[in-house]
Amino acid sequence: MAEVDLSMAQKEALRAEVKELGDQIRALKEAKSDAELIKEKIARMLEKKKLLGDEGQGKFVLKCPKGTRDYGPKAMAIREKVLGVVTESFKRHGAETIDTPVFELRDVLMGKYGEEGGKLIFDLADQGGELLSLRYDLTVPFARYLAMNKVTNIKRYHIAKVYRRDQPVMTRGRYREFFQCDFDIAGQYDAMVPEAECLKVIDEVMSALELGDFQIKLNHRLMLEGMFSVSGVSDLEFKTVCSSIDKLDKVSWDEVRTELVNEKHINEVVVDKLEKFVRMREQNSSLSNSQLLDRFESDNETGAHSSVKKAIADIRLLLEYCELYDVAKRVVFDPALARGLDYYTGTIFETVVKEFSTGYRGGDGRTNDEVDENSTNVGSVAAGGRYDNLVGMFSQKKQSVPCVGVSFGIERLFSIMEMRAELEKSAVRTTETEVFVASAQKNLLKERMKLCKLLWENNIKAEMAYKANPKMLTQLQYCEERLIPLVAIVGERELQEGVVKLRNVEDRQEQDIPLSRLVEEIRARLAKNSRS
Amino acid sequence: MAEVDLSMAQKEALRAEVKELGDQIRALKEAKSDAELIKEKIARMLEKKKLLGDEGQGKFVLKCPKGTRDYGPKAMAIREKVLGVVTESFKRHGAETIDTPVFELRDVLMGKYGEEGGKLIFDLADQGGELLSLRYDLTVPFARYLAMNKVTNIKRYHIAKVYRRDQPVMTRGRYREFFQCDFDIAGQYDAMVPEAECLKVIDEVMSALELGDFQIKLNHRLMLEGMFSVSGVSDLEFKTVCSSIDKLDKVSWDEVRTELVNEKHINEVVVDKLEKFVRMREQNSSLSNSQLLDRFESDNETGAHSSVKKAIADIRLLLEYCELYDVAKRVVFDPALARGLDYYTGTIFETVVKEFSTGYRGGDGRTNDEVDENSTNVGSVAAGGRYDNLVGMFSQKKQSVPCVGVSFGIERLFSIMEMRAELEKSAVRTTETEVFVASAQKNLLKERMKLCKLLWENNIKAEMAYKANPKMLTQLQYCEERLIPLVAIVGERELQEGVVKLRNVEDRQEQDIPLSRLVEEIRARLAKNSRS
Repeated sequence: MAEVDLSMAQKEALRAEVKELGDQIRALKEAKSDAELIKEKIARMLEKKKLLGDEGQGKFVLKCPKGTRDYGPKAMAIREKVLGVVTESFKRHGAETIDTPVFELRDVLMGKYGEEGGKLIFDLADQGGELLSLRYDLTVPFARYLAMNKVTNIKRYHIAKVYRRDQPVMTRGRYREFFQCDFDIAGQYDAMVPEAECLKVIDEVMSALELGDFQIKLNHRLMLEGMFSVSGVSDLEFKTVCSSIDKLDKVSWDEVRTELVNEKHINEVVVDKLEKFVRMREQNSSLSNSQLLDRFESDNETGAHSSVKKAIADIRLLLEYCELYDVAKRVVFDPALARGLDYYTGTIFETVVKEFSTGYRGGDGRTNDEVDENSTNVGSVAAGGRYDNLVGMFSQKKQSVPCVGVSFGIERLFSIMEMRAELEKSAVRTTETEVFVASAQKNLLKERMKLCKLLWENNIKAEMAYKANPKMLTQLQYCEERLIPLVAIVGERELQEGVVKLRNVEDRQEQDIPLSRLVEEIRARLAKNSRS
Repeated sequence: MAEVDLSMAQKEALRAEVKELGDQIRALKEAKSDAELIKEKIARMLEKKKLLGDEGQGKFVLKCPKGTRDYGPKAMAIREKVLGVVTESFKRHGAETIDTPVFELRDVLMGKYGEEGGKLIFDLADQGGELLSLRYDLTVPFARYLAMNKVTNIKRYHIAKVYRRDQPVMTRGRYREFFQCDFDIAGQYDAMVPEAECLKVIDEVMSALELGDFQIKLNHRLMLEGMFSVSGVSDLEFKTVCSSIDKLDKVSWDEVRTELVNEKHINEVVVDKLEKFVRMREQNSSLSNSQLLDRFESDNETGAHSSVKKAIADIRLLLEYCELYDVAKRVVFDPALARGLDYYTGTIFETVVKEFSTGYRGGDGRTNDEVDENSTNVGSVAAGGRYDNLVGMFSQKKQSVPCVGVSFGIERLFSIMEMRAELEKSAVRTTETEVFVASAQKNLLKERMKLCKLLWENNIKAEMAYKANPKMLTQLQYCEERLIPLVAIVGERELQEGVVKLRNVEDRQEQDIPLSRLVEEIRARLAKNSRS
């Protein structure tokens, strides 16, 4: 920052001087002038620059921070549509909403996000006072909220941005600032009833968003613990093995095996035994969920393990409820699903879009794969699970509040819908303007202003050009581009006759309407439009 | 953080051990046992604690970061209502919306916020990569967006949180994280037409929010420059004198004078000369805006100063437009208005609520002053001005995009409306649930689930209890508390007869409805409710 506070005028003057000196120096150098003179000029320029502070460097860095983006008006229109679909489903299920600060005390976030997550937290600078970090998800702040306010049951949704210092891949919708839409049910309830509703919400949202065919993978923390335990994975190794298994949707078993044996030094015998369980779904893709659960039940070791037994009972009950909710067809029990977060204690689930119907295949004829070699893999759009101990970790009395919830990450979807709108060249309305107030002749600015006032005060959404004498063609073009349905045109003749010319933008029909009936007529036309 | 990654079970075990050791140590100390033994136990406890990492300290810090707050469901319902009023007005004026990241490159924010502002920026920690700061307002990110995307005209609104490391005063609604609702018009337009619309928007929003009587103070950067110049304030002193003058709405002239003379070492003669102009409105409160402008015009010095002349012409034109928009009655030209931000170049304005009708005087009979000695001073709810050079500062080619806009800061208002709702004990609906699905007998969980599914799939907002066998009374109380209008009750008899008992919560009337007609009947009742 500048060491002396300068007025804008002074800065302007300084900038001009710096530029002038720069020009002089270049000229002197070119003319191979006296080195001492050049040196002196440079010193003077640096001095002036110093007065301007680091403004000189900063001024031309014109970008969003790495991994972030702006939303322009069109992107916002699409974003609001998508968020509307999600919110509608959450409200259909009777959820309330809450909001929490964008940053939390650092201690609140520590140790909640597994091996990988913890490294990706954005910290705030220590400027004196508390140590703060940007929220990494909405689940931990929710748990902190419940504990702090001693809330023991609530069904809440929360739609907000979260922050991760991940390597961004903007084309695939992986950002450092991104929206999460969370729906969670907290409370001491009967087993699997809240879970079933979460899966129903996933089904509703995914169907409404028209993402194409999708599956909800389902597993259970106790299933993982049981499988690991009978294979010989120690408790201390649980997290790190989970973290490797979690990669199975992206890399092959061989790669995971190599990581486990060579990097994480898990005994080969253990890993090979684990393989049998972990790859059970992969190697038996035609088995029903129930049949796959039978395999675990009939296996000598897992069948006898209390954790596995509990997990199987939960999953069977949940599948039964899913039948009732007509979601069972989407659900695939997969023992390889191992979400990386520390806080899950029961069911875990993750949505996978099987094939992505983006509409890309139209337009320029490219297939999805040609557009982006990974575009068929949307990643996990919705995921969640049960976390019964997280609230207790924040509670002085360790009061436990069982919770289950799902989080939708829809940034990728925004990008895809924006691209789709771009390809289809579909017009996206970015305003809700109903009437544009125009004039054909000059010097009618004040008349237009009066008419706008009349419309605004009657709660009609209206705009006009801010120029004193805009061209008629420009005004009409603006309305057509913006899909504004009506134009109210004031002119000398119309003013004398006490009428306004009302134009339908779509069919270009014009009609004189007495000023006294204008509001009424506009309302009638808008109502007609909204019905058709 | 823990140096070894532990499973939840392991942590639980460790915590128990730590507790056990703590108890032992206390007991040993009380019994004045062998010091060596105590020392050994303490060492073991510390070792265990170390394994748990800083969890031990962190676990019980249960608060929001300083100057921030959570919004619970009721607060959210109120917040959405207030933001709805603001958004409605912005859309009525045909504005589009954009969004920008919560942080910006630090250089983008530097040197934009005057003497005081710069110190209050929240920086992110340097974790490698770019230097980032949380946004301080929405205006600078807007200007950065315009320059980056080469947008030369747009009318946009932006509602989002901004961050200031200010001393928080939560009771007065001064937070470190707070909403701003900005409405700005960018583009090369005819003088004062966009300004007039900004003032119209202020009038609409302030009136709709029912904040009581308010004024919009109006001044002009060039008026300040002219007054300062004829008084003998140097260009270099402009910012610091502005910063003192800006305090005049809170402190007396004598205090400002002392600060200027003793702390800022401005010549006494200069300050005394400045007083005449700065206090012109204060000392002539009965003069009309036009009469006060006449004074400046007829003054030998200001009347001859080109900046003052330009400012007076702008203000007179704006007042004329305000007459057309029926806002003039709100506007008070006040030469003492000096907003602290660097970037203003033309008109500046600030809304002051004259007396605050909070409804406090009802209820417990306390007056405003007894509730909070400053509660009649809501501070500035809406403020803004013209900033024609800010976009150019981000543009490589210095392309200037003239802008004017207003920012609503409504945190204080949220608090007041929350308190009002609390005092009036008015029920605030936090969900939109239309039907609660209940059962009177046991073992009907699955029947309730089926009914919920039917309702959800017909886009009816429905909830049920998650317990297998909830009590009827509890279910009905829930509906009354939550203002849910209808209850659909399933029972053995009803199931056999193929009906559902539909109960109006308000009048407690119940009626059997055939399942086949249920959706239709519910829709009819909801439509009737929404009309009445």
